[in-house]
Amino acid sequence: MNVLWVVAPPDPQSLTATLAVDGVEALREQGHTVEVSDLPAMGWNPVVTAADYGTEGRLRVSEAAGAASAEGRLPADVTAEQDKIRRADALVLHFPMWWFSMPAIMKGWIDRVFVSGFAYGVRAPEGHTRRYGDGILAGKRALVVTSTGGPAAAFGPRGVNGELDELLFPILHGTLFYAGATVLAPHLVPGADRYTEADASAAAADLRARLAGLEADAPLPYRVEREDYERLELRPHVATGETGLRAHLREGLMTTPGGDQQALTQVSA
Amino acid sequence: MNVLWVVAPPDPQSLTATLAVDGVEALREQGHTVEVSDLPAMGWNPVVTAADYGTEGRLRVSEAAGAASAEGRLPADVTAEQDKIRRADALVLHFPMWWFSMPAIMKGWIDRVFVSGFAYGVRAPEGHTRRYGDGILAGKRALVVTSTGGPAAAFGPRGVNGELDELLFPILHGTLFYAGATVLAPHLVPGADRYTEADASAAAADLRARLAGLEADAPLPYRVEREDYERLELRPHVATGETGLRAHLREGLMTTPGGDQQALTQVSA
Repeated sequence: MNVLWVVAPPDPQSLTATLAVDGVEALREQGHTVEVSDLPAMGWNPVVTAADYGTEGRLRVSEAAGAASAEGRLPADVTAEQDKIRRADALVLHFPMWWFSMPAIMKGWIDRVFVSGFAYGVRAPEGHTRRYGDGILAGKRALVVTSTGGPAAAFGPRGVNGELDELLFPILHGTLFYAGATVLAPHLVPGADRYTEADASAAAADLRARLAGLEADAPLPYRVEREDYERLELRPHVATGETGLRAHLREGLMTTPGGDQQALTQVSA
Repeated sequence: MNVLWVVAPPDPQSLTATLAVDGVEALREQGHTVEVSDLPAMGWNPVVTAADYGTEGRLRVSEAAGAASAEGRLPADVTAEQDKIRRADALVLHFPMWWFSMPAIMKGWIDRVFVSGFAYGVRAPEGHTRRYGDGILAGKRALVVTSTGGPAAAFGPRGVNGELDELLFPILHGTLFYAGATVLAPHLVPGADRYTEADASAAAADLRARLAGLEADAPLPYRVEREDYERLELRPHVATGETGLRAHLREGLMTTPGGDQQALTQVSA
């Protein structure tokens, strides 16, 4: 596969930076080709402004971005990233979790690259909007790799922070699956605030093991919009009586304490 | 009350910008004082770098930020925002929802302002870490105001995007409640991609009505860490058998189709 690894290390010597080197090396050893977007090293500008779309006066972002996409007027730094995405068979988003989400620099990679006419607002030849199971990422796999200060239990089904897959739902479902990707369960690197050299080695080994499954692991079984929803809501006969983020997974997937990964595999097997 | 209104309009003529003007005016008419942080107008830098903490070589963000906080070495733009927060009795975060989260510029306001030694990593005199119901925002109210392209139903309990409160859990619970705030249910401005002048007027009236409750509306009943959790997980007798984000709300709060706001009020009444 051709893999695009997008990473946001807070500095070039951080655990995120060294794990990214390990991850890329592991993928190359498996025979994959890898492109890397190291956002801080690239000096990535995370802020959407009218300058991205050559707009004068009032900016309506989705309208302006759609026009700029259609007319080939997006800035070069944005189209370079879009081209990397088009070339990729798999996308890895790798970041330290800050306030239960991406650092701003990576959120701004999404905001500026995933514009209307590219990642949303695109109609299929059949007339429907390509979205939630269909889009520019269709046929591509996506994996989030994220490190946290706290232990894994704090991100478990009854963990104080909220369960990992649900915390990352805006990214996993709302961004990657929205744009059509086949989304894997996220890979957590816990205890990153106080890691030792031995911890870093163990984290690298875990990541390598996880990446061995990038091509074939069963994905999160999110429901496809065109099958299970009507007028932007779950059809009445689908997950009847269920609400909450979990209702958007097929098979009434239940996570089990300490066995998250396993449960996902079982359901999808 | 003294209210801090933090806003990230994509341009000064956007719906977000004009609604912020209406909102601030409404609060002043109610007798409140308001400070505004208009992040794009301030040229806010959203990217955390070693420069924030005067760190040489390897950067461990939470450690470096904690030291810089303790030694009064944070940059002036960050401490100015921290001072505004200290002065405020209520905080409004107002942004267009992009990819089911904040625009990068506002995420970077959180990343740079909510540092260790200020919003996390602070011990109480009794020895515990101030967090999830306690912290710098204790005694302060917080309201998220966010606009979306899609209709409200798409953010309902069975909406295709996921339910609004759960999508925003990383912000409402993981950031605002983590730092101690009394967090209100978010205020949604739907249909923002295609609004007319009449829609904008209606949105302004809705916002004004909502802001009338800023001081007294019942908050989201999130569970307090020191009461309902032990070792970072829900105690066995609390919400027994429940998992998912909803388990972190007291009273087994259930949202009901079309009656979200109402259900919250009923539970807390």
